[in-house]
Amino acid sequence: MSTNRLEAFSDGVIAIAITLLTLDLAVPNPATTGSLGDALADQWPNYAAYVVTFLTVGIIWINHHAMVHRLRQVDHTFLILNLLLLLTIGVLPFSTSLVAAYLGEQGEHVAAAVYAGSLLAMSCAFFLAQRRALVSSPELLHEGVTVEDRREILRRARGGVLPYAAAMALAPISGYATLALCGLIAGYYALPRTTNVEMG
Amino acid sequence: MSTNRLEAFSDGVIAIAITLLTLDLAVPNPATTGSLGDALADQWPNYAAYVVTFLTVGIIWINHHAMVHRLRQVDHTFLILNLLLLLTIGVLPFSTSLVAAYLGEQGEHVAAAVYAGSLLAMSCAFFLAQRRALVSSPELLHEGVTVEDRREILRRARGGVLPYAAAMALAPISGYATLALCGLIAGYYALPRTTNVEMG
Amino acid sequence: MSTNRLEAFSDGVIAIAITLLTLDLAVPNPATTGSLGDALADQWPNYAAYVVTFLTVGIIWINHHAMVHRLRQVDHTFLILNLLLLLTIGVLPFSTSLVAAYLGEQGEHVAAAVYAGSLLAMSCAFFLAQRRALVSSPELLHEGVTVEDRREILRRARGGVLPYAAAMALAPISGYATLALCGLIAGYYALPRTTNVEMG
Amino acid sequence: MSTNRLEAFSDGVIAIAITLLTLDLAVPNPATTGSLGDALADQWPNYAAYVVTFLTVGIIWINHHAMVHRLRQVDHTFLILNLLLLLTIGVLPFSTSLVAAYLGEQGEHVAAAVYAGSLLAMSCAFFLAQRRALVSSPELLHEGVTVEDRREILRRARGGVLPYAAAMALAPISGYATLALCGLIAGYYALPRTTNVEMG
Repeated sequence: MSTNRLEAFSDGVIAIAITLLTLDLAVPNPATTGSLGDALADQWPNYAAYVVTFLTVGIIWINHHAMVHRLRQVDHTFLILNLLLLLTIGVLPFSTSLVAAYLGEQGEHVAAAVYAGSLLAMSCAFFLAQRRALVSSPELLHEGVTVEDRREILRRARGGVLPYAAAMALAPISGYATLALCGLIAGYYALPRTTNVEMG
Repeated sequence: MSTNRLEAFSDGVIAIAITLLTLDLAVPNPATTGSLGDALADQWPNYAAYVVTFLTVGIIWINHHAMVHRLRQVDHTFLILNLLLLLTIGVLPFSTSLVAAYLGEQGEHVAAAVYAGSLLAMSCAFFLAQRRALVSSPELLHEGVTVEDRREILRRARGGVLPYAAAMALAPISGYATLALCGLIAGYYALPRTTNVEMG
Repeated sequence: MSTNRLEAFSDGVIAIAITLLTLDLAVPNPATTGSLGDALADQWPNYAAYVVTFLTVGIIWINHHAMVHRLRQVDHTFLILNLLLLLTIGVLPFSTSLVAAYLGEQGEHVAAAVYAGSLLAMSCAFFLAQRRALVSSPELLHEGVTVEDRREILRRARGGVLPYAAAMALAPISGYATLALCGLIAGYYALPRTTNVEMG
Repeated sequence: MSTNRLEAFSDGVIAIAITLLTLDLAVPNPATTGSLGDALADQWPNYAAYVVTFLTVGIIWINHHAMVHRLRQVDHTFLILNLLLLLTIGVLPFSTSLVAAYLGEQGEHVAAAVYAGSLLAMSCAFFLAQRRALVSSPELLHEGVTVEDRREILRRARGGVLPYAAAMALAPISGYATLALCGLIAGYYALPRTTNVEMG
């Protein structure tokens, strides 16, 4: 399969998942809401989770492009690993909604673990697809990609898994800390100075 | 019509249907949920159905690409059959949600029959589109596709209908068995060794 | 603007609207549903409306492709008319849901009028875009399109408005008749013998 | 990164956000609705908000195309600013729903301020992306874009921010006035005589 349609389909799924995040922002019922300002302010975890997940998925999209750009063609195994990655991205509107609903409630620690876990699963799936592209099937690659390039890219993809494992480890302590760390990770990759740094 | 825009539109519909599956994963209400962990664990049929349908639609997307890739152009009849295929794919978020809600409840058998039936309808629509492309209008095909190729592809597309008929036949016995068989079918097509095997 | 990105964006909106139709298919609540089979059978207007609108939007997509295919480039006025067309397509999941909910209920006639009216608005917007492309700005067209072609295409686009006006006129008599007529219109355009016939 | 995939992804997000606006149009419950005509007429703020936001997002899409069309390639900073723009567009279904629900209710002023604020944020993000493309990284531009072109485009993008600031300033006075002004802004940019005028 050429990479064009793979990109089109992946872009579609990522674009939809990133936009469905917005469904998490609920309009308070006018009939039962006292002060709309207060009701909206109470939803701040939803806004925070929206921004963090939106940026994270946006950065994954940038890295997905870089990964596919290196490929001349894709094989069945890569397609299935790419599907696995899209499956984990498809779960994010749910896990984002979950952590936003349970911050400060009973269940905060479970919700934060699920949220960090879904991001961890995504970065693992990304690492597996990246490894398939770079190691198992070098005949899929464009010629300009050297052995050093491959080693470096894989090292970074593997490194990208760690911060989400740390975020998950923070969940039993504080769900706020988990969300904050995920926000820091996204912010780090979004910074101008990290141009060309890939997120795992 | 050239095949480019057909692919773009089909990719769009398939990508949206696959991502809408996530709407089936509901966030338990914090006000009425005792243990979030238990509440999430109770939703396991939703996770199972999500994964099974996601993989199935993903594989149909791979096969759809292979089908269109063989075509030089498409005619009105193929477009309508393709629409029919997309219509059956569009129903999957509903039937997936249905089987997930009714596993273990009264109505399990009906729900499982509807679920397997929707996958059966999809594989039939795929077979009809495939047959149109291969048999009725050979002038639509790229030249490299031989008569043997065509016979073999059609045979497999026809064969792909059978497992879903079996899954539907299992519905009156057990909805769990229906879902498990659909999962096995998806897993079989996702296996590395089945490269280039098309699913009907 | 070149026509490529116009197609990509229009394909996106049409693909999403056609897939959102599925949200209208609701899963009956397991806790309050006696017989799932009966509950699903009671939803038949939803299935009928789903199929009719899905086919109608699919055919509009085919015709949209044919319209854009004739154009070398597009101007601001055409873009705005195309937006108007997409706006009317975006309303269809709502009006489809409305007619499905109110068939056989008080309010059936209003709901059917809104449904037929939304399809009428769509066909009018299509006619306006078609006219802009063919008459007002011939410099936008590819050279092979003759004056006779243009006259014939416009005549058909104008003619395509009439059946939806008739469907709307039937609404005060019977909502079922309105939905049936809209189904017949879609079926007519989907028939193999109508290849290359454009729907207004 | 080439601009092709940037366009595809941006088109996807914008197309989804514009289509999700339709979810704001709710079907009145047949069991509790007296006159459907009256119930639908009561929803007029939803229809007005739908049309205004749909047109606004449609025009932003046109301008986004013009912006990207000038670029030869994009860098990491531009990608992040583009993500920021998409993030603000993703919020619009929520803020549109909010203003429609609260017009004429207590909370109208807060809701209108949030709505105008979300459009203001979008126009600011567009200005930042535009400035990055035109000023900070001239090596990203196609050669035909002159210094005067750049100055003029930036001046207009900056000017496009002002009307939304005015709409926000109107919110404490009247939510209806805010929505009306936003409608006038969209109508102004949609007018035929404003061909080639970019909205900020």
